[in-house]
Amino acid sequence: MQQFGVIGLSVMGKNLALNVRNHGFSVSGYSIDKPEVEAFAKYEDDKLKAYDDLKEFVNSLERPRKILIQIMAGAPVDEVIHNLLPLLDKGDILIDGGNSQYKDTNRRYHELEKHGIHFIGMGVSGGEEGALNGPALMPGGDEEAYNEVAPILEAIAAKNAEGKPCVSYMGPEGAGHYVKMVHNGIEYAIMQEFSEVYNLLRDVAHKSDDEMSEIFDKWNHGKVEAYLSEITANVLKQKDDLTDDHVIDHILNVASYKGTGNWMLEDGVSLGAPISVIAEAVIARFMSKQAHLALESGIKPTKFESEETLPDNLVDEFENTLQLAQAVAYAQGFQQLTMAAKAYNWDLRYKSIAQNWEAGCIIRSSMLKDIENAYEGGKPLMNLFQDDYFRNLMKTNLPSLRKSVEFATKAGVPTPTLSASLNYLESIFNPNLPANLIQGQRDYFGAHTYQRNDREGTFHTEWYEEK
Amino acid sequence: MQQFGVIGLSVMGKNLALNVRNHGFSVSGYSIDKPEVEAFAKYEDDKLKAYDDLKEFVNSLERPRKILIQIMAGAPVDEVIHNLLPLLDKGDILIDGGNSQYKDTNRRYHELEKHGIHFIGMGVSGGEEGALNGPALMPGGDEEAYNEVAPILEAIAAKNAEGKPCVSYMGPEGAGHYVKMVHNGIEYAIMQEFSEVYNLLRDVAHKSDDEMSEIFDKWNHGKVEAYLSEITANVLKQKDDLTDDHVIDHILNVASYKGTGNWMLEDGVSLGAPISVIAEAVIARFMSKQAHLALESGIKPTKFESEETLPDNLVDEFENTLQLAQAVAYAQGFQQLTMAAKAYNWDLRYKSIAQNWEAGCIIRSSMLKDIENAYEGGKPLMNLFQDDYFRNLMKTNLPSLRKSVEFATKAGVPTPTLSASLNYLESIFNPNLPANLIQGQRDYFGAHTYQRNDREGTFHTEWYEEK
Repeated sequence: MQQFGVIGLSVMGKNLALNVRNHGFSVSGYSIDKPEVEAFAKYEDDKLKAYDDLKEFVNSLERPRKILIQIMAGAPVDEVIHNLLPLLDKGDILIDGGNSQYKDTNRRYHELEKHGIHFIGMGVSGGEEGALNGPALMPGGDEEAYNEVAPILEAIAAKNAEGKPCVSYMGPEGAGHYVKMVHNGIEYAIMQEFSEVYNLLRDVAHKSDDEMSEIFDKWNHGKVEAYLSEITANVLKQKDDLTDDHVIDHILNVASYKGTGNWMLEDGVSLGAPISVIAEAVIARFMSKQAHLALESGIKPTKFESEETLPDNLVDEFENTLQLAQAVAYAQGFQQLTMAAKAYNWDLRYKSIAQNWEAGCIIRSSMLKDIENAYEGGKPLMNLFQDDYFRNLMKTNLPSLRKSVEFATKAGVPTPTLSASLNYLESIFNPNLPANLIQGQRDYFGAHTYQRNDREGTFHTEWYEEK
Repeated sequence: MQQFGVIGLSVMGKNLALNVRNHGFSVSGYSIDKPEVEAFAKYEDDKLKAYDDLKEFVNSLERPRKILIQIMAGAPVDEVIHNLLPLLDKGDILIDGGNSQYKDTNRRYHELEKHGIHFIGMGVSGGEEGALNGPALMPGGDEEAYNEVAPILEAIAAKNAEGKPCVSYMGPEGAGHYVKMVHNGIEYAIMQEFSEVYNLLRDVAHKSDDEMSEIFDKWNHGKVEAYLSEITANVLKQKDDLTDDHVIDHILNVASYKGTGNWMLEDGVSLGAPISVIAEAVIARFMSKQAHLALESGIKPTKFESEETLPDNLVDEFENTLQLAQAVAYAQGFQQLTMAAKAYNWDLRYKSIAQNWEAGCIIRSSMLKDIENAYEGGKPLMNLFQDDYFRNLMKTNLPSLRKSVEFATKAGVPTPTLSASLNYLESIFNPNLPANLIQGQRDYFGAHTYQRNDREGTFHTEWYEEK
């Protein structure tokens, strides 16, 4: 009998199955797509079996069965579950490794619970290469069921700097897919931050592609030690196959998206989470799709007034800027997790989440170790910048972030996420936000009442000019 | 027989009913709340009748019946419709004047259509005073049914500068409630812009409350002729009943919200609308609720470095800033309407929408006339700044907006919506947005492919560093 089953054998499912086999576990694979099964069958040996019949596949597995569903999110997942149900026994464990909406996972968890089936919604990050050699895994659902599959998941997951696997129990119901959604929102934010700093290096500091590649490589060994620094350096130095230029200069500047960042924003709005940087990153992708307006307009973008001398340390200011902006992206993500935990009654483990992201996933960076430390011992933080390390980072780097936004403003370079990072940091510990005017206006036109800063209660003013 | 019926006799329903009666139409009022009925009965005369029995109320109305439902949005509306249905006849017209979600209105429209009942979802703006003396009305649904009730709605609506009523047919299904939702999102944005400029006047230009009141009053007779300028001037000069100070200095700076701005953001995200200023305004309200972090932190907000000389015309720069930022809020609202019209297959009339907002509602301003002109003759604009007037306003005022954001940045004053307005304007006609790096990164880590700026097709690079 095989120890693990995988349904869906396209590149992610196939690579995860091979990863399981490569770690000494026996695995069965099944797909409704015959060519996928045939391709998978080429790897067959005593530890790996390919099936094109669902019942045979299910019967090949030892009980309680452990089945990873790795197919397109949405209705197909419900269909597979529907087809599987009559073939399963109580206590079997289903794992959905797709990019499912956490609300779907909540629903499936409770439906399957009625049938005695354990359901684990699991975020998987790291792409096809990660799937084969070590993804970051974010499983949520039933903790006992997680413990049953933990040995296999821990074996296949990426390992952080201390060799700990990037997988652990995230929380109940759809918490695993929720954490993955937040991961992806943070990913949108940090990618947009990188692209804005790239824009400043290119159009304010007038660096060449190769110079910028070297700068990002240096930062990757400096204050912004992150997978996205590494690949940005590599992307920028890549030569084009079709011209004599660097490929970056021929990639169309219209950003696509699959929408998990959008999901995070929508959920953040419903929670009242102040995730401005995520919002600006999502919207910057929308904005990039309006490029035709630029071409039609004939309006020339403004250029930096060159009589102004650029400071010698401009590139260092940008490094500090990116380091701090990255911290804000993480901080907003963790803040949303904190608010979700409260709203959805989930016991989320922030330290484990940070540790899970330390390797294998797109937003991995050395800063996640600092985040792990910030949450050490289950410290409750509404905001990451309440932690000494991050408060200190804010104090140290805020002048650089201000300087960068100031330069961008003068140069006419849009920096939506850097501006949002700055405004967030200027707001979060600010006792003088001007929302008193908003409350005054609301009471004026709608008698919505207000509270006071000098006594308890609810107040309404009979405004002089009121009719 | 009475010409018009109103269900729900709290302040909005009562005032709308009195408004109808005051314009010479006979009206019946009904409520499940006995005290409301009794209070309404005090106004009884030959043109106004109060009912506490739904059947008697319905039977008092001439056919086709025209009934305005003015109650709390959500389940109560479905309940009232459910109770009304057996009492109605084909061809009767129901109008929902509450702040209903447009998706609920879509659903109710189609459900009632099956019963031969016409359903009009109508946004109402102007508060209780507007309800009595002239609200802005945004009705959507069946156009023929709208024409039946138009004489009454036109009579009670606010009138713009040319005496035209601020009501007209907005579009099919839930389009009326959609337009109201966008109105409210724009309202959030402009209110936040005002509060940021107030913050700059207070903390950068060091103006007193009375000085600021005079400034806003001057702007209301200058470049920012708007209801919100008028009431801001009034709010700022109001003396406190409980202390010797101005009341503004004792209103707690935590902003509340009922959520229609949030709805607009959620819908905008699903449409891919680049509504960054709306997003920042919604999130600024969330942020204001974190004030306790400020108090706990002990971190002192930075102050403007006073050795730097403030320009003499700083206040004029702020006026230009607010004028342009207000235009961006409208532009983003109209852009979302344009995208909604396409996505939901609605024929929205942008000129009429602008005209509807010219009086009676919170976001009324002289600029709406310019917007009306921009859409004159059904001109299709993806972006308001494609119009000559607004393009010119952008050219003229952009230096002031940049200057304001620069001052705010140096002074440590957060300006989320002013920054977002600036970044929006720096992006919308910008052919050099750095989204090419995002696409390069996506192709690197996920083989997501990209398009090129020099030839057709879809491309993937075998990146040097790829394993």
